[in-house]
Amino acid sequence: MKHNFGAGPCILPQEVFKKAADAVLDFNGLSILEISHRSADFVAVMDEARANVKKALNIPEGYTVLFLQGGASLGFLIAAYNMMGKNKKAGYINTGTWSTKAIKEAKNIGIDVVELASSKDKGFSYIPKGFDIPDDIDFLHFTSNNTIVGTQFKAFPKTNVPLVCDMSSDIFSKEINVGDFDLIYAGAQKNLGPAGATLYIVKDSILGKSTADGIPSYLDLSIHTDKDSMFNTPPVFSVFVSNLNLNHMLSIGGVETIAKDVREKADLLYAEIDSNPLFEGTVAKEDRSDMNVTFKCKDDSLTDAFNKAWNAANIVGLKGHRSVGGFRASMYNALSKESVKVLVECMKDFTSKNA
Amino acid sequence: MKHNFGAGPCILPQEVFKKAADAVLDFNGLSILEISHRSADFVAVMDEARANVKKALNIPEGYTVLFLQGGASLGFLIAAYNMMGKNKKAGYINTGTWSTKAIKEAKNIGIDVVELASSKDKGFSYIPKGFDIPDDIDFLHFTSNNTIVGTQFKAFPKTNVPLVCDMSSDIFSKEINVGDFDLIYAGAQKNLGPAGATLYIVKDSILGKSTADGIPSYLDLSIHTDKDSMFNTPPVFSVFVSNLNLNHMLSIGGVETIAKDVREKADLLYAEIDSNPLFEGTVAKEDRSDMNVTFKCKDDSLTDAFNKAWNAANIVGLKGHRSVGGFRASMYNALSKESVKVLVECMKDFTSKNA
Repeated sequence: MKHNFGAGPCILPQEVFKKAADAVLDFNGLSILEISHRSADFVAVMDEARANVKKALNIPEGYTVLFLQGGASLGFLIAAYNMMGKNKKAGYINTGTWSTKAIKEAKNIGIDVVELASSKDKGFSYIPKGFDIPDDIDFLHFTSNNTIVGTQFKAFPKTNVPLVCDMSSDIFSKEINVGDFDLIYAGAQKNLGPAGATLYIVKDSILGKSTADGIPSYLDLSIHTDKDSMFNTPPVFSVFVSNLNLNHMLSIGGVETIAKDVREKADLLYAEIDSNPLFEGTVAKEDRSDMNVTFKCKDDSLTDAFNKAWNAANIVGLKGHRSVGGFRASMYNALSKESVKVLVECMKDFTSKNA
Repeated sequence: MKHNFGAGPCILPQEVFKKAADAVLDFNGLSILEISHRSADFVAVMDEARANVKKALNIPEGYTVLFLQGGASLGFLIAAYNMMGKNKKAGYINTGTWSTKAIKEAKNIGIDVVELASSKDKGFSYIPKGFDIPDDIDFLHFTSNNTIVGTQFKAFPKTNVPLVCDMSSDIFSKEINVGDFDLIYAGAQKNLGPAGATLYIVKDSILGKSTADGIPSYLDLSIHTDKDSMFNTPPVFSVFVSNLNLNHMLSIGGVETIAKDVREKADLLYAEIDSNPLFEGTVAKEDRSDMNVTFKCKDDSLTDAFNKAWNAANIVGLKGHRSVGGFRASMYNALSKESVKVLVECMKDFTSKNA
């Protein structure tokens, strides 16, 4: 058995894989891959998936859940188009690669982007705090978790300005108050489902309020909400598997239970990083991500040897992002505590041989 | 066993379903749903899929194959953005719902759309011919096959103007000369693979030539080609299954063999429609689609009874589109001749009981 610490697409529960494989062979007499998205069977899946998201995140009245395509990369554009307001001005918090890309897409369609805060000065190794949020921006955009560097917002910005968040890499890992947000979007391929679907949680009151001069149809959230997330053929299988996973999540106690497990796994690994003489974390301690744990060998000449060691321990996906180096242990919801223990043991063992 | 005449997402070869299900459980030690898109294993899949498209369609040098997201609905926009030239003017042939949507998206981004020809006057029941193509348009756009009404271009427009085609519903069903086109795009969910991937075949010489004022990154084909179709996380599973299907296609003799089979299936069903006293086709005979065969009962009061008859024969998906009524037999590549024979027998049997 492999221990999959990959950064995404990434591990999902084994039970979900099993049920997904079954449905590829037979879902009410057809393959899930050959059913019409307009069939009663699939409409029921889509409806259940959207309702399950509301249940899992305890979403209040007045929000619509959509499953679209294009990943967060298209989400940057969709967010900017749909949230553009009377000032055509927005605040962005720049915490790394994904925020930087989001800023680029917003500027491209004519939004006056104010970079309210950035941690670029220190390689995005911390989450900026204590910055001012002006009143005259249409919305404030941020990335809740930064997969590449391994930082995460532990508290969300407090403001009366509409909040927009790319939660691709930590949604469903902890309880959030959706009522604080006007728009949340998230590529499915971390805690939700296979690549190919993108989740949108849209406050209904923003719909139709954009001041953009003609939003292309696919990018217009009001078109998708009017069509119940079926404006065009949705990514049927990705939605189906996301729904399997949502049902699994709810069956084990929901996000509250998951959050406890996530914290325990993070505590386990960070404790080892901090106590092991050969390793060190790479970001500010108070901003460390529970999803993507980044660390390195204090002595870089040991890096190759540790790469060999974790490979030998049946661990996969631990190599740090090419722009950062070192190691990155992505510990999404479906990763078991046992896998984290295997990594911790591997580090201890490595240290006893190399210290 | 069900006979799946659904319009899409639709039937794929049983062998493909089997291999896809296997990979959901185990693909080199992990589920295909949990592997990184940057892993060597998946990069090999993506490379093979792109090469297989070139092989299957005998694509000449100077073209790039991409697998993106968003379906043809996003393709309308991507095509318009990337093909916009010095005149910001384009010719569109309007053959139904999909062409109409393509025209809307092009106009929305500021292209002066000239509707060179339309069959709207007769409910899109034929393919317009003999229209003039001006020299001063940047490109000519058309939809090769119209799933809803059941018409299909039997010959493509002859022109020196760059040709752009939405081939979502008949690509891989017959041999085409890709060298005649500057851009072809196609939602995967008919003859290629599961919903969630969209194929682009791009003439390299168009890249970077758009006169659009800042193309959003996800919509910019030059960004996707620079990144080898991995600008962002691709729809991993849809690409994987598309590649299984491409390998299957090539193993049975490729598009040449498939085209023969497609013609035989269409001949079989159209012959029954034309000889059976209770039924009639709904579009101009010379423009009839080999993919989506539309027909109705001459006496509409028999429609409900025939709906019951084909349901009882284990046929699924034969109901005509809600905007057209009657029946639609979608006969994509993977539909067997046996299934067509079952439908023909069902029609004969119905007629012997009701004539």
